[in-house]
Amino acid sequence: MKKSQYTLAELANGLDLTIQGDPQCIIRGVCTIQQGHEGCIAFLVNPLYKKYLPTTTASAVILLQEDADNCPVNALIARDPYYIYAKIAAYFDDRPASVSGIHPTAVIGQHCEIDPSVSIGAYCVIGDHVKLGANVVMNAGCVVGDYTELGESSYLYANVTLYHKVKIGKRVLIASGTVIGSDGFGIAKNKGIWHKVPQLGRVMIGDDVEIGANCAIDRGAIGDTVIENGVKLDNLIQIGHNVRIGENTAIAAFVGVSGSTEIGKNGLVGGQAGFSGHLTIAENVVITGGTAVTRSIREPGIYSSGVGGVVSNSEWRKNSARINRLDKLIDRVKALETRLSELTESKEK
Amino acid sequence: MKKSQYTLAELANGLDLTIQGDPQCIIRGVCTIQQGHEGCIAFLVNPLYKKYLPTTTASAVILLQEDADNCPVNALIARDPYYIYAKIAAYFDDRPASVSGIHPTAVIGQHCEIDPSVSIGAYCVIGDHVKLGANVVMNAGCVVGDYTELGESSYLYANVTLYHKVKIGKRVLIASGTVIGSDGFGIAKNKGIWHKVPQLGRVMIGDDVEIGANCAIDRGAIGDTVIENGVKLDNLIQIGHNVRIGENTAIAAFVGVSGSTEIGKNGLVGGQAGFSGHLTIAENVVITGGTAVTRSIREPGIYSSGVGGVVSNSEWRKNSARINRLDKLIDRVKALETRLSELTESKEK
Amino acid sequence: MKKSQYTLAELANGLDLTIQGDPQCIIRGVCTIQQGHEGCIAFLVNPLYKKYLPTTTASAVILLQEDADNCPVNALIARDPYYIYAKIAAYFDDRPASVSGIHPTAVIGQHCEIDPSVSIGAYCVIGDHVKLGANVVMNAGCVVGDYTELGESSYLYANVTLYHKVKIGKRVLIASGTVIGSDGFGIAKNKGIWHKVPQLGRVMIGDDVEIGANCAIDRGAIGDTVIENGVKLDNLIQIGHNVRIGENTAIAAFVGVSGSTEIGKNGLVGGQAGFSGHLTIAENVVITGGTAVTRSIREPGIYSSGVGGVVSNSEWRKNSARINRLDKLIDRVKALETRLSELTESKEK
Repeated sequence: MKKSQYTLAELANGLDLTIQGDPQCIIRGVCTIQQGHEGCIAFLVNPLYKKYLPTTTASAVILLQEDADNCPVNALIARDPYYIYAKIAAYFDDRPASVSGIHPTAVIGQHCEIDPSVSIGAYCVIGDHVKLGANVVMNAGCVVGDYTELGESSYLYANVTLYHKVKIGKRVLIASGTVIGSDGFGIAKNKGIWHKVPQLGRVMIGDDVEIGANCAIDRGAIGDTVIENGVKLDNLIQIGHNVRIGENTAIAAFVGVSGSTEIGKNGLVGGQAGFSGHLTIAENVVITGGTAVTRSIREPGIYSSGVGGVVSNSEWRKNSARINRLDKLIDRVKALETRLSELTESKEK
Repeated sequence: MKKSQYTLAELANGLDLTIQGDPQCIIRGVCTIQQGHEGCIAFLVNPLYKKYLPTTTASAVILLQEDADNCPVNALIARDPYYIYAKIAAYFDDRPASVSGIHPTAVIGQHCEIDPSVSIGAYCVIGDHVKLGANVVMNAGCVVGDYTELGESSYLYANVTLYHKVKIGKRVLIASGTVIGSDGFGIAKNKGIWHKVPQLGRVMIGDDVEIGANCAIDRGAIGDTVIENGVKLDNLIQIGHNVRIGENTAIAAFVGVSGSTEIGKNGLVGGQAGFSGHLTIAENVVITGGTAVTRSIREPGIYSSGVGGVVSNSEWRKNSARINRLDKLIDRVKALETRLSELTESKEK
Repeated sequence: MKKSQYTLAELANGLDLTIQGDPQCIIRGVCTIQQGHEGCIAFLVNPLYKKYLPTTTASAVILLQEDADNCPVNALIARDPYYIYAKIAAYFDDRPASVSGIHPTAVIGQHCEIDPSVSIGAYCVIGDHVKLGANVVMNAGCVVGDYTELGESSYLYANVTLYHKVKIGKRVLIASGTVIGSDGFGIAKNKGIWHKVPQLGRVMIGDDVEIGANCAIDRGAIGDTVIENGVKLDNLIQIGHNVRIGENTAIAAFVGVSGSTEIGKNGLVGGQAGFSGHLTIAENVVITGGTAVTRSIREPGIYSSGVGGVVSNSEWRKNSARINRLDKLIDRVKALETRLSELTESKEK
């Protein structure tokens, strides 16, 4: 059961770390290192924030061994302070607890298999043949289509929409406004008119996946769209039909993955990046923010496209103009080379 | 009525194609050419997938005449295999059928004209003076504002929001989470403070339009925002106030069209492209993914912006640095030209 | 009370402008200058539209002194015509009026403080300990989490989702589909697996803020995400955890602001721009559309990144290739410089 305060020793219990200072120090919450509060614990990983350590007013800091000497307060010395912070912060998570049971206003279809431990909020609408595992939570206003399944301890925030025949694993967390199983963008032109291509596949989502707010994950056109175990998606992400996202890949906001592209395991994709369709991206690939991935990537590594560096608009205008005149510059260099060759030759004669 | 299986001859009935092989071959579903299943039909258009044809284990393949000789199984030879696939796949579409009638929990306003054939799901909320044509379907949780109209056979997936005075044509399909008729982004600054500009126009959507999930289509500021017949929009698209999208134009995910821009008929817009406001784009224009369209386009053609090609991050850093030093390179070329001219002149003397 | 028509004099009442022409001219609505209607009033600011003034068929035009002589109809001469238009257009705003009271289907939690003047639509679900100020309006299908507060005259369109402990000021307008208070994208890797970092902060939104459709504003990880007074957000915007947006900053669609970045007052951000995390952006900074802001900006000004200018795709391909060969061009210039130096030296000898 949750308490309102813990000793450092209680928080450290079971974690791989060393306490420097007073293990009985009382901690009632978390804070940042720059805005430290009495009774709160902070963490330090990002070098940008090291300057705040010597004067922090937090009661304790989770940090690396190398920073321990500069810590003026209690310290939890860890090999991975951010992960340790994640474990400790969970003690102070005050997300409202879910009320077990099915709200009387929820509409439940026929032939469903619903574990008695679920929590279903007001005005949820659940189709026929739906399966909900133990401890599934569904907040108000969610709509779940026929034959859709959610594994145990999966959690839907309010106003999530799952279409029919979506399969979601265990401990999956889906934020509000997200739509899963919508039709892929399949259109075929005939005699100048677009015709819809029926989208007959499913969406299969593994275990321990987190999906942010207002995402759209389309069902497969023929086979399935697959999000493997441990994938983490930020808000406002678009996953096209028949895409496969490999295990433990994390993707930031506004990324679009076009149809049939496969991204390997352990990938990292920065915000606003985009993938063309029908590509294969290797495991352990990092795509930096804003990159347009227009070809398959076979080797692990960090990849980018475009031109980086924010500059003043006037500088940018000049650069843009120069680039659009690069052909002329190349011609001038070519002319110089020719003239110089002629000059050298004439001189040698 | 739908059946669970068809002969090739039944599927081909009425379509412009030639059967090669056994017209009595039984087909129970669709598959991809690379993952062929006994009893399933695949299609082949994308040259990337031709390598899978000789060994496909599908029971039949829809393909072009030029590929027919390499097909080891039954073939449907078509001039447009993808379109033919779309027609045939419809036989196997298992989207749950809509239940006719108005769910007892739906809240319906006053003075509405609702065809008796409609299907309105649980917890839909429909305003006053709304008109719903024959066979309109509205899944659970949709909200429809006053004076909004949907033409016959239009279909809203769950949790769609239509504001007031939106007019939607016939056979329009709208995916979940999409918002139509929201206020345009109209703000006027006065004495350092932004003031809202009332958005008094409507949204007018033609027939046979498809709109994906979590899109936002703003109402006009003065006149209307117009989506013409046959337009197809992917997920997460933003259409600003007073935009007009011409007939049969197709737009991919994350495209933003700023206020008052008009895109002509038969356009194609790649994902993550953006349009500035007040532009006119001709008919038959293709905008590639990620392009920033900052000027009007008068001629049909394919247009792009930025710098293409995903490269290693280290290469990208060098390229970016080189571009930001282009002015120096230009100066060096100019210096070379001057020196060479001097050299030549001195030589000629 | 609203009327269906006004005289020019009535519309001009209390505003800082001069009437040119007939103050008794009857106005029944608004129109654009290019599609003028009898009985309607237009405005003129954008120079692109000046060509329409001499032939406009509007009954009156709000314009600058410099354009007054070219106006063939009645004119309201103003220093800021767009702002004056905003004030006048409000007379013709026909957004459906809200019905006061709580719809019988709304589910209200315990220990709430709800002003009797509120309007709560059908199927809204409101958690425990929620505070709603005077004249708050909430359209159908909104979900409001525990301990969330809305200040007086704030307005939620249908299907808005507010998580727990979100604080929203006065006169805030939020469009449909928007999600506020969702978990920030906090993940920590340990032994190859991502672990969720609890998001314990809140979202604090000031007064007079407008937020468009289908936005996502994440709660803080430790401290709060803050949107200051007078901020205006377009549709489909992503605000990461612990971001702060300064007063009166306006941001266009598809902009993403990564975690802990602070944008100063009076900023302007164009569509599809993106901000890396942990940046500080000064006041009065303009970021043009599509710009990737990857470093802090200390000085007011206009900033851009990338390469501008939409060109034909064939030209673009050549430019992209040239840029990826820039290193070779630099080498050629260097070689020319060396040869020319040698030549000059040998000549001098």
